[in-house]
Amino acid sequence: MLRDFETKKREDKASLNAEIKALQSVLLGQQQLLMKAELPVIVMIEGWAAAGKGSLIKELISELDPRFYHVESPKVLREAEERFPFLYQYMKPIPVNGKVTFLDSGWMENVVRKYLRHEINKDEYRRRIRQVNEFERQLRDNGYIILKLFLHIRKDVQYERLYGLVEEPATEWRVDGEDLWQHKEYKRFLEAYDDFMEKTNEIVGWHILDGNRRKTATRDALRIITQRIERGVSEGRFEGVSLEEDFPLREMPKLKDVDLSVSIEDDEYKKELKRLQSRISELHNIIYRKRIPVIFCYEGWDAAGKGGNIRRLTYALDPRGFDVHPIASPLPHEKNRHFLWRFWTKLPKSGHICIFDRTWYGRVMVERIEGFCSEKDWRRAYHEINEFERMLTDWGAVLLKFWIHIDSDVQLERFKDRQNTPEKQWKITDEDWRNREKWDEYEIAVNEVLEKTSTKNAPWHIIESNDKQYARIKTLKIIVKALEKAIDNHFENMMNK
Amino acid sequence: MLRDFETKKREDKASLNAEIKALQSVLLGQQQLLMKAELPVIVMIEGWAAAGKGSLIKELISELDPRFYHVESPKVLREAEERFPFLYQYMKPIPVNGKVTFLDSGWMENVVRKYLRHEINKDEYRRRIRQVNEFERQLRDNGYIILKLFLHIRKDVQYERLYGLVEEPATEWRVDGEDLWQHKEYKRFLEAYDDFMEKTNEIVGWHILDGNRRKTATRDALRIITQRIERGVSEGRFEGVSLEEDFPLREMPKLKDVDLSVSIEDDEYKKELKRLQSRISELHNIIYRKRIPVIFCYEGWDAAGKGGNIRRLTYALDPRGFDVHPIASPLPHEKNRHFLWRFWTKLPKSGHICIFDRTWYGRVMVERIEGFCSEKDWRRAYHEINEFERMLTDWGAVLLKFWIHIDSDVQLERFKDRQNTPEKQWKITDEDWRNREKWDEYEIAVNEVLEKTSTKNAPWHIIESNDKQYARIKTLKIIVKALEKAIDNHFENMMNK
Repeated sequence: MLRDFETKKREDKASLNAEIKALQSVLLGQQQLLMKAELPVIVMIEGWAAAGKGSLIKELISELDPRFYHVESPKVLREAEERFPFLYQYMKPIPVNGKVTFLDSGWMENVVRKYLRHEINKDEYRRRIRQVNEFERQLRDNGYIILKLFLHIRKDVQYERLYGLVEEPATEWRVDGEDLWQHKEYKRFLEAYDDFMEKTNEIVGWHILDGNRRKTATRDALRIITQRIERGVSEGRFEGVSLEEDFPLREMPKLKDVDLSVSIEDDEYKKELKRLQSRISELHNIIYRKRIPVIFCYEGWDAAGKGGNIRRLTYALDPRGFDVHPIASPLPHEKNRHFLWRFWTKLPKSGHICIFDRTWYGRVMVERIEGFCSEKDWRRAYHEINEFERMLTDWGAVLLKFWIHIDSDVQLERFKDRQNTPEKQWKITDEDWRNREKWDEYEIAVNEVLEKTSTKNAPWHIIESNDKQYARIKTLKIIVKALEKAIDNHFENMMNK
Repeated sequence: MLRDFETKKREDKASLNAEIKALQSVLLGQQQLLMKAELPVIVMIEGWAAAGKGSLIKELISELDPRFYHVESPKVLREAEERFPFLYQYMKPIPVNGKVTFLDSGWMENVVRKYLRHEINKDEYRRRIRQVNEFERQLRDNGYIILKLFLHIRKDVQYERLYGLVEEPATEWRVDGEDLWQHKEYKRFLEAYDDFMEKTNEIVGWHILDGNRRKTATRDALRIITQRIERGVSEGRFEGVSLEEDFPLREMPKLKDVDLSVSIEDDEYKKELKRLQSRISELHNIIYRKRIPVIFCYEGWDAAGKGGNIRRLTYALDPRGFDVHPIASPLPHEKNRHFLWRFWTKLPKSGHICIFDRTWYGRVMVERIEGFCSEKDWRRAYHEINEFERMLTDWGAVLLKFWIHIDSDVQLERFKDRQNTPEKQWKITDEDWRNREKWDEYEIAVNEVLEKTSTKNAPWHIIESNDKQYARIKTLKIIVKALEKAIDNHFENMMNK
C-alpha cells in the first residue's frame, strides 16, 4: 500500500510538472495575443514572508520573452520616510499596452504593514482602502487586466521555511526583522490580510493560492493567469463604466460672465509683486522643511499669459526646490499607458513644488475636442481626475488650479502682436490659429471642467488676465494664502494620520 | 567727495542692473537659436558653500521659458552609499538637443569632497580626473556645449555669509555640518579645487567668478554664457575629434575562422545546465550582498539564439535582482541625447544584474550600416565605448560581452523554420530578411568591433551557436567563472579605493 502511495505521488508530481510546462507555453503564446490586442496586464503577487513569491514569479516568467514583461519589487518604507503618495511606487511600473508587469508584493502589503506597525491609524487605513479601490477601478477602466494573487501558507509552514533560511549561512540574510515580526504576529496579520481582501474584492477579485504546496500553487497561478488573459483577449479592451458624480463641488461662474475689466496700477503692481515674491520665498523655505508637497496647475487660453505668470512665481522660488513641467502631447510610451501615468510620475517629492504648465485636464479639453480619446474616456475622466486630486490632497499636498482667462479680442490682439514682433514669432504657430477657430468648442469644454471638477478640496481659480499684471498679483495672493494655510494645518494633519 | 562716491556707486549699480537685464534678454533670445541649431547646453555652477550658486542660477533662468531648461541639484553621497558610477547623476539630467541643464554643483564638487573626506584615495582621485576629462570630451564631441563656472569667495566673506544664515532661525537649517567643515578646512579645499581645476581645464576651460560681489558675478556669468552660446550657434554642432586607440586589446579571430561545428550531447547538456544554473543561483546571492554590479551584453546574428540563451540564464536568477533590457532603435528623447545616455540610465544598481539584449554596439553596427549616424560619429564610437566600459569595470562591475555566432546557412534554416511554424511567425519580420541581405556588411562591421573593442578589462566572447545547447553551456560557464573571480577580487578592490 505504501508503495502504491509513493507511485501515485510520483505520478501526481509528473503530471503536475507536465501541466505547468504546458501552461507556461500557453502563457508564452498569449504574449503575442496581448501585443496584438494592445492589452496591458498587471499581476500582483501578495502573500506571507517565505511563502515563495519570488520562486513563483520565476516560474511564471521562465518561458517568457524579456521584451514583454517586467518584474518590480516594491519596498514598504516607513511612513515617515515616504516622499510620494503610497500608490506612487505601484503606478510607476505599470506596463504599456501589450506588456506585463509582475509585482512582487503590492499595495495590500503596503497598507496592511503600515497599519499593523501603527504608522497609519484606522481612518487613514479606511482612506487607503478607498484609494486602492479607486486605483484598481481606474486601471481596469483604462484597459488594464489586473490579477491579484495571494500566496497563503500556514503558520507552521512559515516557521519551517524561515527556520530553514536562517539556519543556512548563505540564506540567513534573506530573513529580516520584519519577517520574524510577521511570524510572531501571524494571527494579527492573518486578520489584517483578511480584512483588506474582503474590502478590496469587488473591483478585482482575489485569488488565494495554497503556498504550502509549491507546485500546486504554481500550476494554479498559471491557470488563473492564462484563463484571465484568454477572457481578456476574447472580450477585447474594457471600456470602463460610467460613474456617478459624488464630489462636493464649488459653484463656478460661466466664463462669459467673468468680469475681465479688472486691472491694477503700475505702482501698486510693482509694490505688491515685490511683497508677494518675498513672502513666497519665505514660505517656500518652510514648505521645504516641513516636507509639504505643492502642486500648481496652470491652464488657460493661448496667449493668456501663463508663461509670464509662472515666471513671476518661479522668480520667488529656490531653483533647487521646484520643477516646471510643460505638458505637450503625450509621447508614445505615455500614450500607451493610463492617461494619468505621465502626471503621477512627475509628482513632486514632499517638500518640493511642481508647476504644471498645462495639465491632466488636456483629457477633457484638447483630447475631447480633437477626438484623441473616446467619448467614454473623457466623460469618465472628470471623476477619475477628481479622485486623483483627492488622493493628492489626502496625501497632504497643496493643490491649486488656475484658469488664466482672457477674452477672444485680447487673444487676437496678442496673436497679432506676436506675429509682428520678430522676437515673439516663435510663440505663435499655425496650431494656435487653428485652436482659436475652435474657441466656442473650448469654451463649452472649459465650462464643463469648471462645473465638474471644482471640488472643495481642489477648487478652480479663474484668473482674469486681460490685464496680465492684475492676473499675476491675484495668482500670487492665492498662492500665499494657500501656503500659509497649509503650514498652519500641517501639524494638525500629521496628528490625524 | 563722499557724496560723489555714493553717487558713483549708485550709478555703477544701476548700470550693472541694466546690463544684467539686457543680457538676460539676450539669453532668452538665444533659446530659439539653440532650438533651431539643435544644440544642447550644460551650465555647471561650482563654488564654495554660501557663495550664492542658487541665487546665481535664479538670475540666469529668470527670463527663460521653463520649457527650455532644467535645474538639477545633485547631492554628494557618501562613497559607501553610492549605488551607481559617480558620474551617473550628472549624465542622467543632460538635456536633449536645443535645451539647457543648469547643474547646481557638479562633478568637481563630487570628486573633491570625497577625496577630502578620505572616501577615495589618491589613485582613485586620479582615475576620476581621467574619467571626468573623458566625460567632458565625449559630451563635447557629441555636440554638447559645456560651461564650467566656479563661484569664488574669500574665507572672510564665507564666514560672514554662513554666520548670517546661522543667526536667522528661518535660514539656519540651510547651513549643515559639511558647510562648516568646509569653512574650517578652507585652505585644504582651496588647494583641492585648484588642483582639480588645473587638471580638468583642457577639454572645457574653467571660468572663475568673483562671488564676493554678487551682481558682478551675475553679469559676468551671463556674459560668459551668452558669448559661448553665440559662438556655438555660429560655429554649428561640433563634430568631434578623432582619437588615438590606446586600449590594451585582446587578439580576436575573424568570424569566418570560428569553428562552428562544436556541439554537446543531450545528456551532458541537461546535467551541465542544471549544475551551472544552481551555481549561478548561489553566486547571485553573494553578488547581491556584496553589492557587485553585473552587466551582461548580448549581441549576435538574428536567430542566433540570444533569447533562449538569456532565458537559460535568467531562470537561475532571483527575479528581484535582475533586469533585462531589450534594445530597439532609440526613441526620440533618446536619439536627441548623447548616444550612450540610454545605456547609462539603464545601468544596474550595485548588487543587481542587468542584461542587455543588444547594446551600445548598435552604434558601430546597425547605425553605421544604415547610416543613422555620421561616419565620424561611428568611427569615434569605438574609443568612446572603450572608455565607457573601462569606467564600468573601474567602478567594480562585472562586464561580459557575448557575440552569439552562427553561420549564414543556419540562419536561413531558422528563418524558414520560423516562417513555417505558426507560433514562431512573430519572431520573423521583413526587416530580418533585409538585414540578412547585408550579411557581408555586418560581418565586416562585427569583425571591426571584435578587433577594436575587445579590451583586456572587457573582452568579447564569441559563442558558437549553430548548436544552441552548446552555446548556452559555454555562456553559463563564462558567467560562473567571471562571477567567482569578481567575488574573490571584491575585498581587494575595496581596499584599493
